[in-house]
Amino acid sequence: MADAQQTTVQFARGLEGVIAAETRIGFVDGNLGRLVYRGFDISTLVEQSNYEEVSYLLLNGKLPNKEEYSNYVSRLKKLKYLEKDEYDLISKLGKVSHPMSTLRTVVSYIGAKDPRTVEPDVAVQEDLGLELIAKMPTIVAAINRAHNGLDFVKPDPDLSYSSDFFYQSLGRKPSTIEAKMLDTALILHADHGMNASTFAAMLTISTLSDMYSSATSAISALKGPLHGGANERALSLIQKVGVPENAEKIIGEMIDRKDKIMGFGHRVYKVYDPRAKILKQFAERVTTANKQQVLFKTANKIEEVMISRLGSKGIFPNVDFYSGMLYYSIGFNPDIFTPIFAVGRISGWVARALEYVRDNKIFRPKALYSGETGPKKYVPVNERD
Amino acid sequence: MADAQQTTVQFARGLEGVIAAETRIGFVDGNLGRLVYRGFDISTLVEQSNYEEVSYLLLNGKLPNKEEYSNYVSRLKKLKYLEKDEYDLISKLGKVSHPMSTLRTVVSYIGAKDPRTVEPDVAVQEDLGLELIAKMPTIVAAINRAHNGLDFVKPDPDLSYSSDFFYQSLGRKPSTIEAKMLDTALILHADHGMNASTFAAMLTISTLSDMYSSATSAISALKGPLHGGANERALSLIQKVGVPENAEKIIGEMIDRKDKIMGFGHRVYKVYDPRAKILKQFAERVTTANKQQVLFKTANKIEEVMISRLGSKGIFPNVDFYSGMLYYSIGFNPDIFTPIFAVGRISGWVARALEYVRDNKIFRPKALYSGETGPKKYVPVNERD
Repeated sequence: MADAQQTTVQFARGLEGVIAAETRIGFVDGNLGRLVYRGFDISTLVEQSNYEEVSYLLLNGKLPNKEEYSNYVSRLKKLKYLEKDEYDLISKLGKVSHPMSTLRTVVSYIGAKDPRTVEPDVAVQEDLGLELIAKMPTIVAAINRAHNGLDFVKPDPDLSYSSDFFYQSLGRKPSTIEAKMLDTALILHADHGMNASTFAAMLTISTLSDMYSSATSAISALKGPLHGGANERALSLIQKVGVPENAEKIIGEMIDRKDKIMGFGHRVYKVYDPRAKILKQFAERVTTANKQQVLFKTANKIEEVMISRLGSKGIFPNVDFYSGMLYYSIGFNPDIFTPIFAVGRISGWVARALEYVRDNKIFRPKALYSGETGPKKYVPVNERD
Repeated sequence: MADAQQTTVQFARGLEGVIAAETRIGFVDGNLGRLVYRGFDISTLVEQSNYEEVSYLLLNGKLPNKEEYSNYVSRLKKLKYLEKDEYDLISKLGKVSHPMSTLRTVVSYIGAKDPRTVEPDVAVQEDLGLELIAKMPTIVAAINRAHNGLDFVKPDPDLSYSSDFFYQSLGRKPSTIEAKMLDTALILHADHGMNASTFAAMLTISTLSDMYSSATSAISALKGPLHGGANERALSLIQKVGVPENAEKIIGEMIDRKDKIMGFGHRVYKVYDPRAKILKQFAERVTTANKQQVLFKTANKIEEVMISRLGSKGIFPNVDFYSGMLYYSIGFNPDIFTPIFAVGRISGWVARALEYVRDNKIFRPKALYSGETGPKKYVPVNERD
C-alpha cells in the first residue's frame, strides 16, 4: 500500500467552488448584484409580493393563482399553532438557553412527536415542510417571549405570516411600515444559494431522513457564528460607534488596523448587496418612528466612511448591516436575530431539501487520508510512552 | 446574462468521489478489505483493545498510556449520568417516537441546557465531545427502556463503556462473550470514512456551531434509511427466510428477480467486509447461548447461497448482516439498532468534527443554477393561470 503521507493531492477546502447540486430555485449574481428567486428579481418580489407568495414560489416554481394562494395561506394559518407541551418546552429552555439551541430542540421535539416522520415519502415530506414553514414564526416568537421572561402571545388567525410573527414576538401589532419592513426582511432571507445551513438540510434529507431532521440540521449549522450572527455583530459595531460624529475616527482606525468590519463586504457580491439596498430604504423611517434615529444616522455615516475608503475595492454594506439595526429598532434583542433569519430561511431550506430529495442521491464525498496506514502493532498499555 | 439552461456542466451528484477534507483518523481500503483507525487494523483493535481505548485513539491519534487511559475512563464514568429532566424527556418521547427522533431531541436538549455551548472555543468543544461520548450509551439505553415500556436502569459506576450500555439497556449484566461481542460491535462502528452523518457533523461544526449541534445533525442524517437501518432490514430478511432449508429457494428467487438483498455488498468493500468477518466469529456462540441458533444457521445458509451465486462479483456479507442478528439475539428490538450504531459512531463523529474545526474552513459549495434567470415580470394574482 502506498504511503498516503507522501502523496500530494489538491482539493478544495470547504468545498469552495465545488458544484454539489443542481437547482432551479435561486441564484445569486455577485457581479451584477442580483438575487433571483425562480427568475424573479428580489426587488420585484419585495415591491409587489409578500412572504406567503414568495414561499409558494420557492416551493412550487411559479406564483400561485388566486385559488392556490388562498389554499396555501389557509394551510399555513391552520398549521401555525403550537401545543401546550411545546410551549412548556420553550418556557423551560427559553430563559436559560441560547435561542438557537432552544429552536433546534423544539423543532426536533415537534418532529419526534409526529408519526409521519418515521419513514416519509416525498408527499409526506412536502406536508412536513409546509408545517415547518407555518410553525417557525410561532416557535421563534415564543422563544423570544420566554427568553425575555414575557408571557406568550398566541397566534392571531387574521394576521399575515410576518405580521403575526411581529405580533407574537413583540406583543403589539406592527405599523404599516413595520409590517412591510419585516415582511421584506423575511423575503430577503428566504433563500441564498448553497450556504452551510441549506446544504445541511439537503445532506440530511439525502439519507431519506425526514424534513424535521433536515430542519434540525439546518438550525444546528445556522447557529454557528460563521453563518448566522453577523447582524448581531454589525449592530454592536453601530452601537459602539454610538453617534455619527465618531464614525470617521473609529471606523478609520479600524480600517487602518485592518480589523474585520462587520456588516461590510460579501464573499459573493462584488457590488452593493441588493438586499442591503432594499433594507436601507426602510431604515430611516422605521428607526425614526421607533426613536432610534441615531442608530440610522450613525450607520449611514459608517457607510459613508467605508465606501469612501473601501468602495473602490468592492466593499459595501451587506444585508446584515441594516437587518440588525432594523430588528433592534422595532424591539427585538440581538440574541434573537439569528432565529429571525431562520424564520425567513425556512422556505428556502424546505424548497431546496424537497428539490433535492425528489431526484435524490445520498451525499457521500471522500476524505483524503494522510495518516499512518500501518498496520501498526498493538503495544500493551504498561509498555506505552 | 447567459441563459444557464443552455449550459451543460458536469458535476458529481452526491459529491461522489469528490474529496471534501483531509483526515488522519481512519481509512477504508475496499480492495484489500482493511479498515484502519490511526494506522491500526480494526482486527488488531478488537482483539487486543477495548472501546474506551479506541475512542481515545480516534480522538488523540495514539493509544493512551496507563495514566492517560485511567484519566480518560474516569472522565467518561463521571460524565455518563443523566439528570432527572433528561429522563423525563426520554419517558415522554420514548414510547411514541421513532428512537432516532428521540435521540436527536434529547441530545439537542442536553446541549441547549449547557451554557458552554453558546460560543465554544476548541478546548470547550473537546470537553463537550467527551461528554457526548460518555452520555450516548446512557441516553440510548434509556430510550430503549422507555420505548419498550420498561423502567430505567441507571448507570453502574463499575462497568465498562459497552457493558454498562448492555446493562442499562437490557437490565442484566452481559456474559463474557456478550460483553466482548458488544464492545467489538461498538469498535467496528466507531468510524467509517466520510459517511453522511460524519459529514453532517463536520459541516455543522464548520460554522463554529457547538459539538452538541454537530452531534444533533449527525443523528438527523443517520436517521435516514439510506444511512442507518440496513441491519434492521437484514435481520428482517433472515427472519423472513426463517429456517436454513428455505434459503436456497427464497434467496435464489430474489437474486433472479434482481431484488436488493439487504446485508450484502458494499459501495467501498470489493472483498469480504472486515467488520462482518469479525462479527461472524461471535454469531454462532452468542446466538446459541441466547437460543437464537436458528437465526445464525439461516444467516449462514443465506451467506452460502449468496456467495455461491454472487461472490465472484464481489458481493459478500457486510457488517449489517451480522450486527442486526447479534443485537437481536441479546435482546434488542430492531428499531433500536440505528441508535446502537450512534453509540459506536459517536467517537468518530466527535474525532472528525474536532479534527476539522482545529483547521477550520466553513463548507460552502456551489449549486449549478439551471432555472430561469429572468428578470421575470410580476403578474398580479387575478391575472395568473
